[in-house]
Amino acid sequence: MIGGRRPLQGKKLGDKRVRLERPHSAYFRWTGPGTLTAKAAASVPETPVGRAWARTKAILIGRPLSNEQEITERLPKTKALAVFSSDAISSSTYASEEIVLVLMTAGVAGLAFSVPIAIAIALLLLIVATSYRQIAYAYPSGGGAYAVAKANINQVSAVFAAAALIFDYMMTVAVSVAAGVAAVTSVVAELLPYRVELALIALALLTVANLRGLRESGNIFAVPTYMYVLGALLLIGLGVFRIATGDPAASFQPPPIEAPAEGFAAVSAILILRAFAFGSVALTGTEAISNGVPAFKPPEARNAATTLTVMAVLLGVIFVGISVLAQAYGIVGNEQQTLISQVAQAIFGDGALYIYFQISTALILVLAANTGFNGAPRLAQILAIDGYLPRQFSFRGDRLAYSWGIVILAAVAGVFIAVFDGSVVALIPLYSIGIFFSFTLSQGGMVIHWLHDRVSGWRVRLGFNLLGATVTAVVAVIITAAKFPRGAWIVLIAVPAFTVLMLLIRRQYGSQAAELSIDEAVVIASPHRARRIVVPVNGINRAVVNALNLGRVLGDDIRAVYVTDDEHDGEAMRARWERQLPGVPLVIVESPYRALVGPLVAYLDVLDQAWPPDAEVPITIVVLPEYVARRWWDRILYNQQARRLKAALVGREHTVVADVPYRRHH
Amino acid sequence: MIGGRRPLQGKKLGDKRVRLERPHSAYFRWTGPGTLTAKAAASVPETPVGRAWARTKAILIGRPLSNEQEITERLPKTKALAVFSSDAISSSTYASEEIVLVLMTAGVAGLAFSVPIAIAIALLLLIVATSYRQIAYAYPSGGGAYAVAKANINQVSAVFAAAALIFDYMMTVAVSVAAGVAAVTSVVAELLPYRVELALIALALLTVANLRGLRESGNIFAVPTYMYVLGALLLIGLGVFRIATGDPAASFQPPPIEAPAEGFAAVSAILILRAFAFGSVALTGTEAISNGVPAFKPPEARNAATTLTVMAVLLGVIFVGISVLAQAYGIVGNEQQTLISQVAQAIFGDGALYIYFQISTALILVLAANTGFNGAPRLAQILAIDGYLPRQFSFRGDRLAYSWGIVILAAVAGVFIAVFDGSVVALIPLYSIGIFFSFTLSQGGMVIHWLHDRVSGWRVRLGFNLLGATVTAVVAVIITAAKFPRGAWIVLIAVPAFTVLMLLIRRQYGSQAAELSIDEAVVIASPHRARRIVVPVNGINRAVVNALNLGRVLGDDIRAVYVTDDEHDGEAMRARWERQLPGVPLVIVESPYRALVGPLVAYLDVLDQAWPPDAEVPITIVVLPEYVARRWWDRILYNQQARRLKAALVGREHTVVADVPYRRHH
Repeated sequence: MIGGRRPLQGKKLGDKRVRLERPHSAYFRWTGPGTLTAKAAASVPETPVGRAWARTKAILIGRPLSNEQEITERLPKTKALAVFSSDAISSSTYASEEIVLVLMTAGVAGLAFSVPIAIAIALLLLIVATSYRQIAYAYPSGGGAYAVAKANINQVSAVFAAAALIFDYMMTVAVSVAAGVAAVTSVVAELLPYRVELALIALALLTVANLRGLRESGNIFAVPTYMYVLGALLLIGLGVFRIATGDPAASFQPPPIEAPAEGFAAVSAILILRAFAFGSVALTGTEAISNGVPAFKPPEARNAATTLTVMAVLLGVIFVGISVLAQAYGIVGNEQQTLISQVAQAIFGDGALYIYFQISTALILVLAANTGFNGAPRLAQILAIDGYLPRQFSFRGDRLAYSWGIVILAAVAGVFIAVFDGSVVALIPLYSIGIFFSFTLSQGGMVIHWLHDRVSGWRVRLGFNLLGATVTAVVAVIITAAKFPRGAWIVLIAVPAFTVLMLLIRRQYGSQAAELSIDEAVVIASPHRARRIVVPVNGINRAVVNALNLGRVLGDDIRAVYVTDDEHDGEAMRARWERQLPGVPLVIVESPYRALVGPLVAYLDVLDQAWPPDAEVPITIVVLPEYVARRWWDRILYNQQARRLKAALVGREHTVVADVPYRRHH
Repeated sequence: MIGGRRPLQGKKLGDKRVRLERPHSAYFRWTGPGTLTAKAAASVPETPVGRAWARTKAILIGRPLSNEQEITERLPKTKALAVFSSDAISSSTYASEEIVLVLMTAGVAGLAFSVPIAIAIALLLLIVATSYRQIAYAYPSGGGAYAVAKANINQVSAVFAAAALIFDYMMTVAVSVAAGVAAVTSVVAELLPYRVELALIALALLTVANLRGLRESGNIFAVPTYMYVLGALLLIGLGVFRIATGDPAASFQPPPIEAPAEGFAAVSAILILRAFAFGSVALTGTEAISNGVPAFKPPEARNAATTLTVMAVLLGVIFVGISVLAQAYGIVGNEQQTLISQVAQAIFGDGALYIYFQISTALILVLAANTGFNGAPRLAQILAIDGYLPRQFSFRGDRLAYSWGIVILAAVAGVFIAVFDGSVVALIPLYSIGIFFSFTLSQGGMVIHWLHDRVSGWRVRLGFNLLGATVTAVVAVIITAAKFPRGAWIVLIAVPAFTVLMLLIRRQYGSQAAELSIDEAVVIASPHRARRIVVPVNGINRAVVNALNLGRVLGDDIRAVYVTDDEHDGEAMRARWERQLPGVPLVIVESPYRALVGPLVAYLDVLDQAWPPDAEVPITIVVLPEYVARRWWDRILYNQQARRLKAALVGREHTVVADVPYRRHH
């Protein structure tokens, strides 16, 4: 399939028309009157470089898939839980540690607050999840913050929500990959100096896998989520049992903490709010199920809502459970070994169970990163279709994946990983801010939705969403304030800037569409317009003759124009021209300033101005001879002047540029 | 003059023909039947960016000059000496130091040889100058090594000589600028740490000056050369007088020299040859006069020969004189203060005379660097005309200067200065190798010349040139061997590589010319060829209608092709099309692999193959709608697909691509 396009065996059918309409061809199937369907062979590149690239791509990301090969599987609840919850549940692997890291700055006194804060966050999770259940019912076609805000609030807030979500998807990728690597380096400490490299390798593998069209549908995706949930529940169960049976190590004694140079901070409301803000990263990923309602088996909305509840409960239990165990065993975590890894080691020891748990942690985090790879390019596609991003983001690549979105997401995430040295602690301050803004906008949108659409029980529903919107708005402000000095300012610049950019793009596309649009009712008449042919020539040679011949076919009002900076050269040219091309008038333009493009365009202007102001100016067809270089490096030797001329002419009023290639035939 | 092109006042003359042939226009003068001469206004750019760039250029390098403004002044001998000798004579500012630096490695014993070696080099200079006098007579139109080798030996040796010369011109620039800066830092030691920056600033100023079209003709160019010659002769005269009158400081006592870590080298034949090799840098620039014969007042050849002799004598006297003074006063030079600066200080003291001499040294070196800026771009222009370099090198810029050559020369010289840290001592090993190879080739060419063209006295002439060729060949080998470990290997790679590149470029242009050429006797008949119009469309909009209208003007066999990856979309399109554009057949190509370019090109192939193999395939005119973006950043939003399609079609057999722009009109 990958190989040069070969000449087809033309069958002599006599009647051309029939053969054109129904080609029995290696490239097409005839699928109706005037309709052809391309086979894979029609897309095979013709140049050696093109073929080599196609072959490389086929090895790297697989052979092209046709549209019909799209997988549209409906998921049962058990599988959907695994597929859509990996992002949310995986945040339990680092959320407890984030709380403890903040509280530690107040020393032992601070650590006492870690469990209450975890419980408060779990309550917040409950509110948000309840709020999202409503969205699942109201928008069964998939209600992301963008869709809800667009339907209920306005364009700007929808685009802002989308920008915030895309930023958070990007951070999901960066944080999850970094945390996955941290799960590995917690066990194999020797790899710690290479964490950036490891993270970038993992990112590259995820990128290739997603360009291959890795879908969330495979059973394989269910495995890591259940592995981790099982491991975490076992960990908590065993831990609680040990504490209950009086394990002497579970002394609830805080570890000795070295005072920082500036001394311990006081345990203040501010500190507790900061710890809450950093811990609320546990909520990231909560929106995934409501976005994915159409993928559920019917009844879609109810199944999605049930799954959402199960997910929230599991996440809450694991998150609070790990916080309790860390408190009991006096564990705070450090850059060498994560808190959750230390907890697991304390409960499971060094054996197979611990290794199993670390592997499942790393795998669920990779899966969570994959959520970003699924979510961001799809959202970008929706935005591109709506005109907020360049159209390229809506094109699907060979494997039906949104290649542009995937590649750009990976590149940006890679830059963040590299700049922040692959450290989860350093990346977290940028994470979860965007998501809380988009939580607020989607819940707020739902409030407006219920006001407009007063179905039975709308008051209660509105109440839940209003609570959700209020709480998440407050949390969004707290998080932004708390994280501001440690990097959140980047989000406050990037998300609005991205919003403005998308709005500008939309305006641009919108004005183009308005300008180009034609009333559907109009029947477009055949044109009658005079035309004039101008052929810039650089001498008498085969390329020029080719161009002149085409010009003579196109019309009778033809003139060749020769620009020279040498009077004598012009005279010699005219003499030869009149001998060899007596049929074509030659205009010689002497250019004492040695410019080519300017005088030629000026000559066209003079031609146009020769028409009376009220007359219709004829179309000028500029026929350009072009020598086709066979190798890329040949190109710098040829056509430099022609290229500049073309650039100056494309876009000139009433002007058409026709390239007539001259190509070597051997 | 710099400003937008404004609409011209069209005079209603009634007869169009007259007005087209004789436009009374702001852009053109009518200079004959069918011949226009562009005024400066015709080259004024139309876009705001283009105008801003033109304005910047006008400030930086001056307003454009027309061909007629070329200065073609003939030089009297006194001025020619100054203009053409600055490069050669300026080498006396560093040549003595180069000899001493080599001899120093053998300690005091070595230094004794500096004057004899200087005398040997002066003799070599005499031989080379005599040899070049002959070239001046034989090639009064300017006989550079390239011209002589091309006329007498062969293409490869001529190109090799040219490559060597261009490399040496580049080194002339780098070394002269660095040496000029050294003359300054010898006086103002505080500037020594900034010598690279100073050299690059000087280089930039020289570049701008040369792009402005600085010519060798002004009287101003005579000043530095005579200033320096006067200063140097005064220095030598005063020095010799002091020595003769028994100045106690002129003790001919060598200075105490610190032994290097590896101890002193023995005074060996090798060492003396190395000192000779490094000192022979004094000969660089000797060829300039023979290249410039046409610039002399008549009788050109005799005047040039006389000037050459005067130059050689002056250079010899100054070079040997400075070596003698350095010997007498026990001066060896160092990185802080050059040898010649120390000699001048010893004779002149610290007063005005010393400062005068240093200023004249710096100025003549800048002038010498300018020789490189004059020589290399002119040689590159000759090579470009002969097809050995891309044509761009033969284009003259706004100020009649060969902009490409100037800019590239400056860039390469700048890189060498930066890499070698602005040190004359470090740069010298790469210098003067190329020039000796080109000496050898030009003298050798002259030997062959006399064998072919046995004018009266040819035996004597042949004898001189043979001596010259032999001696310079031996010296070339000695220099290469001596300098090889200190950087000459770069020359041995760069010059042959450059030669091969130029030969490849020549072959490329040659084969293109052969392919395109048309016998001058042939009268080219009018063509009769069928044509078919294909318009790829992306919907029904104004841009598409524009393109269709042009297509319908161009011919009757027209079809629109719509590529889609969605069957239903295709049906909807056909329904709308048949309603709105009933006159134009629409072909729908379904592309399940989502490719656009491949299926479209494949469709054209199918059309072509529908013709019987023996019939002439009609020309396919692919008319492409193009939306013209108004700002550069708009471009990434539009036409990406059209651009790829165009790239695939340009160069297809029997295919013409016509771009129909759609441009906003407000």
